[in-house]
Formats: sequence, structure tokens, C-alpha cells
Amino acid sequence: MRGPGPDTGLRAADLHSSLSDPLLDVMNFLNEVTLRYPDAVSFGPGRPYDGFFEVDRISTYLDTYTRYLEQDLGRTPEEVRTALFQYGRTNGQIHELVARTIAQDEDIHTDPSGIVITVGCQEAMVLVLRALLADPDDVLLVTDPGYVGITGAARLLGAETVPVPEDGAGLDLDALRSTLAAVRARGKRPRALYVIPDFSNPSGTSMPTPKRHELLDLAAEEDLLLLEDNPYGFFSRTGERRPTLKSLDSRHRVIYFGSFAKTCFPGARVGYVLADQPVTGDDGRRTLLADELSKIKSMVTVNTPALAQAVIGGMLVAHDCRLRDANKDLIDFYRGNMEALLGALARHLPQDRWQVRWNVPDGGFFLVLTLPFAADNALLEESARDYGVIWTPMSSFYLGAGGEHQIRLSASYLTPDQIEEGVRRLASHLTRRMGQG
Amino acid sequence: MRGPGPDTGLRAADLHSSLSDPLLDVMNFLNEVTLRYPDAVSFGPGRPYDGFFEVDRISTYLDTYTRYLEQDLGRTPEEVRTALFQYGRTNGQIHELVARTIAQDEDIHTDPSGIVITVGCQEAMVLVLRALLADPDDVLLVTDPGYVGITGAARLLGAETVPVPEDGAGLDLDALRSTLAAVRARGKRPRALYVIPDFSNPSGTSMPTPKRHELLDLAAEEDLLLLEDNPYGFFSRTGERRPTLKSLDSRHRVIYFGSFAKTCFPGARVGYVLADQPVTGDDGRRTLLADELSKIKSMVTVNTPALAQAVIGGMLVAHDCRLRDANKDLIDFYRGNMEALLGALARHLPQDRWQVRWNVPDGGFFLVLTLPFAADNALLEESARDYGVIWTPMSSFYLGAGGEHQIRLSASYLTPDQIEEGVRRLASHLTRRMGQG
Repeated sequence: MRGPGPDTGLRAADLHSSLSDPLLDVMNFLNEVTLRYPDAVSFGPGRPYDGFFEVDRISTYLDTYTRYLEQDLGRTPEEVRTALFQYGRTNGQIHELVARTIAQDEDIHTDPSGIVITVGCQEAMVLVLRALLADPDDVLLVTDPGYVGITGAARLLGAETVPVPEDGAGLDLDALRSTLAAVRARGKRPRALYVIPDFSNPSGTSMPTPKRHELLDLAAEEDLLLLEDNPYGFFSRTGERRPTLKSLDSRHRVIYFGSFAKTCFPGARVGYVLADQPVTGDDGRRTLLADELSKIKSMVTVNTPALAQAVIGGMLVAHDCRLRDANKDLIDFYRGNMEALLGALARHLPQDRWQVRWNVPDGGFFLVLTLPFAADNALLEESARDYGVIWTPMSSFYLGAGGEHQIRLSASYLTPDQIEEGVRRLASHLTRRMGQG
Repeated sequence: MRGPGPDTGLRAADLHSSLSDPLLDVMNFLNEVTLRYPDAVSFGPGRPYDGFFEVDRISTYLDTYTRYLEQDLGRTPEEVRTALFQYGRTNGQIHELVARTIAQDEDIHTDPSGIVITVGCQEAMVLVLRALLADPDDVLLVTDPGYVGITGAARLLGAETVPVPEDGAGLDLDALRSTLAAVRARGKRPRALYVIPDFSNPSGTSMPTPKRHELLDLAAEEDLLLLEDNPYGFFSRTGERRPTLKSLDSRHRVIYFGSFAKTCFPGARVGYVLADQPVTGDDGRRTLLADELSKIKSMVTVNTPALAQAVIGGMLVAHDCRLRDANKDLIDFYRGNMEALLGALARHLPQDRWQVRWNVPDGGFFLVLTLPFAADNALLEESARDYGVIWTPMSSFYLGAGGEHQIRLSASYLTPDQIEEGVRRLASHLTRRMGQG
């Protein structure tokens, strides 16, 4: 008989296979590694900067939201109490505010009924993958390197993920076409492709505008859905702004994931998904994909905390549903940080002297360094312990082989001084290693 | 080729099978049916009463929590800001407060490291089922009738659920033994049994204390885990208090689900699971089941909103981690409501005159009425439209056949006057039907 005896507890081998997948440790590792070396400068997690945040504002935003409910929507005090106290609408209560915000900020015009407010963008990914990955033949395509959250969610559902290589300008579309053919040749159905077109995590690359149009055409030809994730879109370094896939999507090919973790704050855990695809039942009845996601959400978190929605809702109301304007200081801050990181790297690791290379992202939180030797967990441990600097091995973000000589640097929540000091320490470690080699 | 053409959207038949399962509509139905008939008295959803709740208190509890972090835990203002603003520990930040609370309220003594703070109890169920239901041969046993949230979560994961009939005193243990044998004879592995020992949803029944001991012994003999859900435990009508399974569990057989939805408020969406089972890896390394759940949670919601945890944490601190005392008025309120419901039924549907029967729950939110004719959606529609009273057909809560003549009444969020009026309307409908019959 399998299973534990009466007193011996459980065996790991008897738990779901996803739990022994190293992938599921990556995100915990990213969140918690900084705790192990509190004095190190950490280029590890992509945490938002919290210097502009004041705890007192939470109550102010709550007040703003309750005033909005009373004055703008004409709710009675009892209805306001119910909105904050009770279980609520499964797909959320701030969907109209979110629709106004993405219309103004992203030129995405949609009926609010297509929006599902979720517990962070992560829950949105779980809902969408659960709906789309209907049987064992359905596979999810993801950019490689890619975001661990999407691959991890697929693992939980026991679904296969297939990597599609990035090039220096986002996705490699030729590789996408040949991957699709290869997947179909195995009798599998490529259901959707996950992509971060702007300042991708982990690579920092972006997709040029013409390639976005090309990708949308390809999706229509190949009967593929695109899962567009846009957590970093505001944070352009160069000032250039490219259209989201969703704003160009006239054929309902794009499911759009948004998050307030970076533009408001992560502690609210409020994200959303715009899933305005029509769904036709066997009986001809039509719904939206968002309505189908609602059924799943009712069995995952029931609804997104009213409290968290109220604070984010209050922030949206306070800023007239224009988060891009509200984030002006933060956009400047992240731009300055990325410039500081690029500058410090050029000073401390001059490319005419050392064999270290890096990309020059147009924005976002992340940059990739390529070393002349392996960038593994052992090197990271040494770096943290002996040099007081933390980063993430890029190999963590590849589905198969890849990134063995690369590290990801995140400069999102440091100050320029910390960035300078961190790069100095990193350079000291790497140049000593290269001097030894 | 399967799938939609370029512009036609999606076909429901191409989405995950759980979406066409009527079960997943039940919870949405319960949450939203009241909106369709706003003037009806609704005995439908098991919503908590919100009359004692004041919106202003949210800010007070937030303040209490930040003071606790600063004064009791000695955190700096920067650390407090980070605790509220940032992504946090995957398994939560109020686990120590929760451990103190369940020690004082429930006599459950545990190390806080075994607790996972979740987005409502529903997320906890998803995490636990994902961990335990490792392969297609693993099945979940649930009481029948049972809570739709647990069955729905199993559906999302594609796992089989097997009903175990209740008797008037909770679970039928003989039926449990024979069900276990039958499941094993099919080559399946019964992994866990979900049960609400106190004032079950939907039946209102409770398990006598001797049967709790017997169930724990049976679980050890049969190598079964027990998933104990305890949302209603405080709300005894008779004043009698029975020990939770977890407080009697000396063999790590019980995974305990708790919720603050009923004892604090649902709009925070904060629940937890106590999963202190040791887990042994192939390499002999030992963790707790809570540590394994953390990996899954990092891919479902990343962490429970800091904001929601802070408000619930503030409530726990404000009440010295004694929620049973803090809920005294609410306990009296629910007791009064159940008495009012029983009294009104006896007055308006005297059992010596009409063939309507009901159980007499020892507490909780729910009571079951048995009618001499079918209690289906058509009867419900008639009841809501023509008599202005709403209830839930019990057949919604059975995995297979069952409950066709029964309705569930919830008296949790009505006032005694509304209960009286609702029962008067219900009796008027039922007696007219019986008079016609």
C-alpha cells in the first residue's frame, strides 16, 4: 500500500509532481533570498521601489473610494458598507474604473464586462490557463527565457509548456512559426503564447512596433491566442512608447494581463485580465471569456478582497483614472536607475577590457549580463557571501538549457548610490574571477 | 482543425470541462440570485450579517496593526512601510497572531510555521487539493450533501470526488468504511475526506464528540487525511461546544481550514490552513506540508494581500487574539436568528397540519426543509417571483441524486422580522401548493 503509516506523515513522492519541480522554488527564492544576506546589495528580485509610498495614504484612498461610491455612484451608506464588508461580484467591483484607466493610459477601449479583477496578475494567469488548457493535448507556448509565474501556473495544472526563443528584439517570429508546426506535428494543439512585449522579464528586451503587427497577423493565421502581460509598460527609459498588442487587436486574439503592483503597490495584490473574447456554447448561447473565467475564479478565491479593490479604486479615482500621469515621478525614478546601472557597468566593467557584455534595455526593471564563465548558484553564493551583492542566474528562467553564463540584474528598488556600490562589488568579484581565469 | 476561425472567437466546447459543469455555476448563483429579486426576502446565500460592521473601523484596525508592528515587534517605520507596501512572505505575515488565536479560541496548539494565510478559505482548499491529488488515481471524499467550494476546486484540478452520505449526526461512518473499500477495489487511492463537523453547510448537522474520536481512529487505520473546515464553529445555538477534530488530533491526520469571513468580515478575504504534517523527501529531508503549500501559493496568488492581512491582524490584536469573546454579540445574533427561524416555521407550517419537515440544527447558518413535492429551480423561480422569497434547492449540493424534495434556508444575514416575514411568504407558497396537491 502506498501512503504513510498511521503516525509518519507524508512522503514528498506522494504529492503533486509540480512540487518537486525546481521551477516552483524560483519565485520563493527571488522573494526570500534577500532575507538571507540583509547587508548585501540585491539586484535580485524585481521589487517595486517603495520610497514614494506612505502608509497614511491607505486610509485616504479608502475614504476617496467610499466618497466615490456615495457621491459619484449615489450609493447609500448601507450599500457602501456592504460593498466593503461582504462577498461581492465575482469579477470585481472596480472594473469600470479599470476600463477608464486603460482607455486613457493604453488606448485600449473595452466594455468593463470583459474585465476580471484578480488577486494580482498571477491569479489571472491561473484562471486563463485553466480555461484554455482543456485537455492533455493543449500546450502553452512561452518566450524563452520567460517569466516563471506563467510556467509555474501551467505546471500546477499539469499542462505542457513549449519554449519559443527570444531574439534581441523580443520574440523570434520564424522560430515561433517552426515551433507551431513542430507542436502540431506531434498531434498537440498550441493554444496560446505568453509574451511581455515591453521590457520583458527577465531579458529586458522589447518588441518593435512592426513586429507587433506581424505577430497579430501570425496569431490570426495560426489560430493562436496571445497572452500579453504588461507590468512594466509605463517604465520607458528612452521615452519612446509602443502600442500594446491589445490596442492593435481587432480580431479578439489578445488576452491582456494588467497589474497594479508596479503602478500602485504590490501589497494590495490587485491585478486584472481583459478577456473580451466571445465564447459560443453548443446551444449557440454567447458569453465572454471573462464570464467563463468568473466560474473558475469563484472556485479559486471567490472574489478579490473588497478592501484591496477599494484602496486601488481610491487611487484610480484620486488620479482621475490616469495612472501614467500619476506615475510620473516613479517613471523618472526607474529611468534614472536604469541609466545609473548602465553607467556603472560601463565604468566598472569597461567592455574593451573585460569580457562581460550586457544588453541595453529600452526600459523596465531588468538587464542581462553575459559572463565568460558559468553564472550558477555557487557563484551567486560566493557573490553574496564574500562580495555582498546578489543577482539571479538567468538559467532559472529557461525551460530547458540556456542562460548558463548569464545573470539578471534588477535595479528597480535600489537608489542610484546603491546601484553604484552594487556594481562596484559585482565588478570586483567578476574581475577577480576573470583575472584568475 | 479544432478551434475558432480568425475572427469568430472561442467555442465553449474547447474550454476546460469544469466550465460546463453546472456545479461551477452554483456559487455564482448563490452570490448573485439576490440581485435579481431585490425585494424578496432571501434565505439563499450564507452571507454573514453586516449590521455590526462600521466602515470607519477599517482605518482603526490598520492603525492597530501598524502600532503592533512598531511597538510589539519593534519594527522601524521603514519596515512597517515595507510590510504593507511590498510583496511579502508567501505564507503570510499574521501567522503568529493566528496561532495565538486558535490556541485561545479552539485549544489548537501549533507552531505558526504550519499555518498558511490564504485569500479566503477557498484558496486554501485549492492549495491542499493540488498538493494531495497527485495523480489520476487519487480521489477526494466529500460529505454528501456537501460544500460546493471543495467539489468545485477538485473539478478545476480534474480530480474525482466520491460522495460519503451524511446521517442526521454528521457523517455516516459505516458508509465511509464501505466507500473506502469500494474506492480501493477500483484501484483508486482515497487521499482525504472533507468534512464540516460543526453546523455543516448545507445540512446544518453536527458530529457528536464520540463520533469525532471514532473518525480520527478510522482515519489512522485507513491511512486517510481529514480536511476539517470550521467556518461556523463559534455559532452554537444551544451553547454546547464540541472539540474540533484538530484539537483532538495527535497523529497529524487533520488539515484544518479556518476563515475570518464569518468572525471578522468577508470583504477582507482572509482565511488560513493549518497543515503541520511532516513531509519526508526522497533524500530524507523533512519539511512541513505548509512549506509545500507555499510553493503552490507562489504560483496562485503569490501572497495574500498585505492590506487585508493588516486589517485582520489589527482586529486580532485589538481583541487580544480572542475572537470568540469578540464575537459575543454576533454569536447571540445568529443564535437568535436560528431560534426565530425555528419558531416561525413551527407557527406557519405546523407539522401536525402540513407535510413539511425540518431538522433542528445545534447552530450555524443553515437548516433543511423537506417538502412533499419537488423543490427545483422552477419552484424557486415561482417562489421568488410570486411570493417574494428566495431559498436554495438542496439538490445543488448533492454530487449525484439526492435532495430533490429539500430546500436549504439560511437565516444568517436577516433580521428576526425579515425571518418572520420570509417564513410567512414561504408558508403561503408551500401551503397553496399542498392545498392544490
